Amino acid sequence: MGNRKRIQVGILGSTGMVGQQLIQELTGHPWFELTWLGASERSAGRQYTDVTNWRLPTSLSSSLGNLIVQSSEPTSAPHLMFSGVDASAAGQIESAFANAGHMIVSNARNHRMEECVPLLIPEVNPDHLGLLGQQRKRKGWAGGVVTNPNCSTVVLAMALAPLRGFGIRSVIVTTLQAISGAGYPGVASYDIVGNVIPVVPGEEDKMEQETQKILGRFIEDRVELHPMTVSAHTTRVPVIDGHTVTVSVKFEKAPTLDELREAFEGFTGAPQEQELPSAPKSPIVYLNAEDRPQPRLDAQRGRGMTVSIGRLRECNVLDIRFVALGHNTVRGAAGAAVLNAELLYSQGLLS
Amino acid sequence: MGNRKRIQVGILGSTGMVGQQLIQELTGHPWFELTWLGASERSAGRQYTDVTNWRLPTSLSSSLGNLIVQSSEPTSAPHLMFSGVDASAAGQIESAFANAGHMIVSNARNHRMEECVPLLIPEVNPDHLGLLGQQRKRKGWAGGVVTNPNCSTVVLAMALAPLRGFGIRSVIVTTLQAISGAGYPGVASYDIVGNVIPVVPGEEDKMEQETQKILGRFIEDRVELHPMTVSAHTTRVPVIDGHTVTVSVKFEKAPTLDELREAFEGFTGAPQEQELPSAPKSPIVYLNAEDRPQPRLDAQRGRGMTVSIGRLRECNVLDIRFVALGHNTVRGAAGAAVLNAELLYSQGLLS
Amino acid sequence: MGNRKRIQVGILGSTGMVGQQLIQELTGHPWFELTWLGASERSAGRQYTDVTNWRLPTSLSSSLGNLIVQSSEPTSAPHLMFSGVDASAAGQIESAFANAGHMIVSNARNHRMEECVPLLIPEVNPDHLGLLGQQRKRKGWAGGVVTNPNCSTVVLAMALAPLRGFGIRSVIVTTLQAISGAGYPGVASYDIVGNVIPVVPGEEDKMEQETQKILGRFIEDRVELHPMTVSAHTTRVPVIDGHTVTVSVKFEKAPTLDELREAFEGFTGAPQEQELPSAPKSPIVYLNAEDRPQPRLDAQRGRGMTVSIGRLRECNVLDIRFVALGHNTVRGAAGAAVLNAELLYSQGLLS
Amino acid sequence: MGNRKRIQVGILGSTGMVGQQLIQELTGHPWFELTWLGASERSAGRQYTDVTNWRLPTSLSSSLGNLIVQSSEPTSAPHLMFSGVDASAAGQIESAFANAGHMIVSNARNHRMEECVPLLIPEVNPDHLGLLGQQRKRKGWAGGVVTNPNCSTVVLAMALAPLRGFGIRSVIVTTLQAISGAGYPGVASYDIVGNVIPVVPGEEDKMEQETQKILGRFIEDRVELHPMTVSAHTTRVPVIDGHTVTVSVKFEKAPTLDELREAFEGFTGAPQEQELPSAPKSPIVYLNAEDRPQPRLDAQRGRGMTVSIGRLRECNVLDIRFVALGHNTVRGAAGAAVLNAELLYSQGLLS
Repeated sequence: MGNRKRIQVGILGSTGMVGQQLIQELTGHPWFELTWLGASERSAGRQYTDVTNWRLPTSLSSSLGNLIVQSSEPTSAPHLMFSGVDASAAGQIESAFANAGHMIVSNARNHRMEECVPLLIPEVNPDHLGLLGQQRKRKGWAGGVVTNPNCSTVVLAMALAPLRGFGIRSVIVTTLQAISGAGYPGVASYDIVGNVIPVVPGEEDKMEQETQKILGRFIEDRVELHPMTVSAHTTRVPVIDGHTVTVSVKFEKAPTLDELREAFEGFTGAPQEQELPSAPKSPIVYLNAEDRPQPRLDAQRGRGMTVSIGRLRECNVLDIRFVALGHNTVRGAAGAAVLNAELLYSQGLLS
Repeated sequence: MGNRKRIQVGILGSTGMVGQQLIQELTGHPWFELTWLGASERSAGRQYTDVTNWRLPTSLSSSLGNLIVQSSEPTSAPHLMFSGVDASAAGQIESAFANAGHMIVSNARNHRMEECVPLLIPEVNPDHLGLLGQQRKRKGWAGGVVTNPNCSTVVLAMALAPLRGFGIRSVIVTTLQAISGAGYPGVASYDIVGNVIPVVPGEEDKMEQETQKILGRFIEDRVELHPMTVSAHTTRVPVIDGHTVTVSVKFEKAPTLDELREAFEGFTGAPQEQELPSAPKSPIVYLNAEDRPQPRLDAQRGRGMTVSIGRLRECNVLDIRFVALGHNTVRGAAGAAVLNAELLYSQGLLS
Repeated sequence: MGNRKRIQVGILGSTGMVGQQLIQELTGHPWFELTWLGASERSAGRQYTDVTNWRLPTSLSSSLGNLIVQSSEPTSAPHLMFSGVDASAAGQIESAFANAGHMIVSNARNHRMEECVPLLIPEVNPDHLGLLGQQRKRKGWAGGVVTNPNCSTVVLAMALAPLRGFGIRSVIVTTLQAISGAGYPGVASYDIVGNVIPVVPGEEDKMEQETQKILGRFIEDRVELHPMTVSAHTTRVPVIDGHTVTVSVKFEKAPTLDELREAFEGFTGAPQEQELPSAPKSPIVYLNAEDRPQPRLDAQRGRGMTVSIGRLRECNVLDIRFVALGHNTVRGAAGAAVLNAELLYSQGLLS
Repeated sequence: MGNRKRIQVGILGSTGMVGQQLIQELTGHPWFELTWLGASERSAGRQYTDVTNWRLPTSLSSSLGNLIVQSSEPTSAPHLMFSGVDASAAGQIESAFANAGHMIVSNARNHRMEECVPLLIPEVNPDHLGLLGQQRKRKGWAGGVVTNPNCSTVVLAMALAPLRGFGIRSVIVTTLQAISGAGYPGVASYDIVGNVIPVVPGEEDKMEQETQKILGRFIEDRVELHPMTVSAHTTRVPVIDGHTVTVSVKFEKAPTLDELREAFEGFTGAPQEQELPSAPKSPIVYLNAEDRPQPRLDAQRGRGMTVSIGRLRECNVLDIRFVALGHNTVRGAAGAAVLNAELLYSQGLLS
């Protein structure tokens, strides 16, 4: 991609936590140049640095900080738009932009489960991009919408993807989710310091449904849900970054632990083959130490894009069990969106 | 019990965390008077306050602090002995005391799974005390040993006990365990602040096996394991007190959620009927709020002796799922032992 | 007070954190019966349990939960009113109630520094209640307002009070404040888990000014500020309850460490003499262990009403230094207000 | 340094926390090649990966993991040795190596305050290396020992260094120290989760004495202590990395806040001039936001080598006050040692 001109991109919902993380992921990106920041009308017309409460350890560059924030109107925006808009507004805004011809790479939940919208993990279901044709037809959009999964779903779906070939039938999963997944200000410190909250509202449904779609087969012009059942318990724990999940799985025909482990270790996909800029060398690593993965030690693997697996062993009730961990704001949000955009670009779907 | 003279009791392993918690639970006890504190030979002969690193918020009374610590020899000790000895030494010491005629109420794991040793939760299996006759016969002990479950097991076992009548067949459980369960110094702060450790070594086996025994039926002179399978994932989280567990259960014939909830809410047992001093009014409470139970808000219920349940709902894979929470150092250790001793006493088994 | 009828009291701002803590402190109070709960107009007319997000470990009684919330109008309210109203509204509401004849015991900062308003710590400056006469005259109020200090100030002021006799000249203090002091939702967990925030906005001024007034002498009809200078650094740390402060003090003539320690240990006041219901046996305890006081172990002393001191030693720059700790929502807010009301009552100032 | 051959270095005490951090800092170093790992006799002769409990998020390279650990004997070791040995053993081992001709760059406290040993911060007192001649003479060592300050001291000393010209007379400092500063396992989680420990044993003396030496002038062959007095309060807080300090300072003649701020912002030193590999672009940054610096957001600045300052304002008691923050295991330990070695090398003192 050496001498090519970088293509301009924008961010819808740029002042929230996901917006800030998108800025962080796009800073210094070799293909994409961030030139447009959108926010609510209240913020429009002012410098980004004046309307955002920057919460990330990395510094905001002055060139981005000085950018004048735009209201969420398609007019002036680049073709490729990332969306970190809250679910309360994302449906409408993203549709308007897609209708006006933009390609939206969205982190919001609104369009994820629509039949004609790809719910994309580039290593897992790149063929789901085939839905875009159907999407244009049904929606009448000049552009399109591609989504990434919920931050808990992505950890589970990536951990299950290498095992699809063995015929996954049912999955019971418990999440231990980091607080950065709740946005800002998100969870009150009084509720979570030294504590566990035994529910993350709305996330159990997402994990149960999104996973079926992500692992589903693309046939002709639609995705056939993966024929399995997922049951999720969600919890919030006082961790900054990194969602940990404990998983039990039943297969059509149980493979050996060795076969499963080889499946984890050998897993790779389109981003690795095409050497996409945000692709980790290994989308999945298997850790041998009994007490791993841990969020503080392992969430940053592959610059936050690698999912770590450990403690693979037999399950007394289903077939096998293990622990998986992923970085919820990178692989589970901003990094996921950027990798999705890179896949779109490398497949010539951005023109 | 008004005018009766309090009976003297002692603690083996009094300087460790469980020992300190036993002292705390026994301070001001209406039936038991703590007069004997044991520890390793290194500490014997010195005042308790000089050999212990007292870590609890409650103060140590000066009368106990001034007590001269004894070595772990049966000679001078009271008949009723609580044991907070580490597993590395508990087997031998407890056997020696039982052999010498003492009744040992132990928190250690060593004797729990022996066929002739009651693994007791007074609300759940008081009839298991019937094993003591067999125990004397087989072991040739003049005294006896009664044990309480592991601190994670007890939360699960109490939550399952009201559901026994429905024919529990399989259980998948994930624990989020507090750090006080690991003793002192226990888990290094560098490992757990802002982090999750995805294993508590040795505890999965305990939960899987102990629960079968606790819920088992006492027939003639032995306990028939409950015919169910348990699969446990254990984790450690940065919480001080209170183990949270997420549970999925499959029944022989699935009851309705209403039936299950009534079973939780109506659950009571021998300690409540006999109004034992440490018995909570309700061994189990069901909380309606979607975000409960939480360790910081709910672990102290019933002075730490009540297990809180919440989020009962259907499971997509097994039949139902819910969250349970109990205080790991009270209901899961010292309080459990004291309640066991109270049951022994009220059943005339201390003479 | 045995047979006397309990007097009815109300709470302004009853749904916030301070309001909830006031309810907790007043539950089962031997003198005061809580019969009136006020909140904003939005909540008025509905049951308390429906408009509050109860955040405390203790349960709310059903009789209080069922109480119909009143708007903040003086009409129907009892004579004695506690105020947990936010500073944004407290000034106006409290004045209106005082004007209408109510005695307001306020936790808000609004009236604290007014010359004719007592800023009261019953053990430290009970004579400041003498300001109430002047207050009525100047304000034209039929009732009155009495305030308690900011939650950080009270720890410092109580620690300094026993040392007044030695001629305090200057004080440098650094606070490590708990998150419960910030109300609810208060500090975002993303900002404080595993972190320190090096400022608590507005609190440094309060500590520097309020302390001078609290330690001041009441002369005729006014309080003469204590002739000393305070310099405060404030920080927020991930602790639930308990503000820790490090303090260096310079005296007119430096006393010995023994003299200071005796002053701490011998300190007592009107609440102890009059055995007010909320008075701790010792308003101050001195702890000998080198690593105390600690919030988790010591904040609850005296049911949260005792300030713990430790580590008294010479200061290389000023004269002496030490550490103090107090419970910020009990001695620093709700408990302080209730003790203030008890003093008012015992001195016959509630009629 | 492009084509130069890297010089071989070793680590004494390589299995502890400081040893691990030294390995991390030296991995990929452009000048130094780590080829020798030492530990106690118990570990000697085995592969590093088998005798260490690696606790850092970064991975250990297999080439280092496979290295055979040496006992702490000078024989086979490279000339330049880093020491992460515990204070209990460091004095003797470091002396033995220095005697045998090695140059020791030590993080241990043992030799820090010896008159002829440089207590070095390359930006602050590079001229103190002039002590090495005197050291050889007095000690009779063929090699030498250079030390870096205690992890709290270095934050204070770097913050004060730019202000030396204004005549610092007295300093009162309170630390809020991270748990990684206590080694491994270090502080028990039970003691620090949701808590503050109001002392870090031994560190107050270090801060009070080391700072005087670091800021002292090198005259002929000795260091004249800076004529100021420091009084330190130390505390431990539940933060992983980053020591925060609140500081009040009195000057001979108080400068304006603008002058002080310019001094902070303009501060630079030998490592920046000589572009040493570990030198941060700015050894000190001043942050304008009222709520900064914060450990989680700012400790990593300059790859952990930059000290962040904020909240500069007048002090009511001394002259000025501010907050400073530095990374305790990088600028406060391993990074400090590596920068010291780089200065030694660039000044030709390694041959």
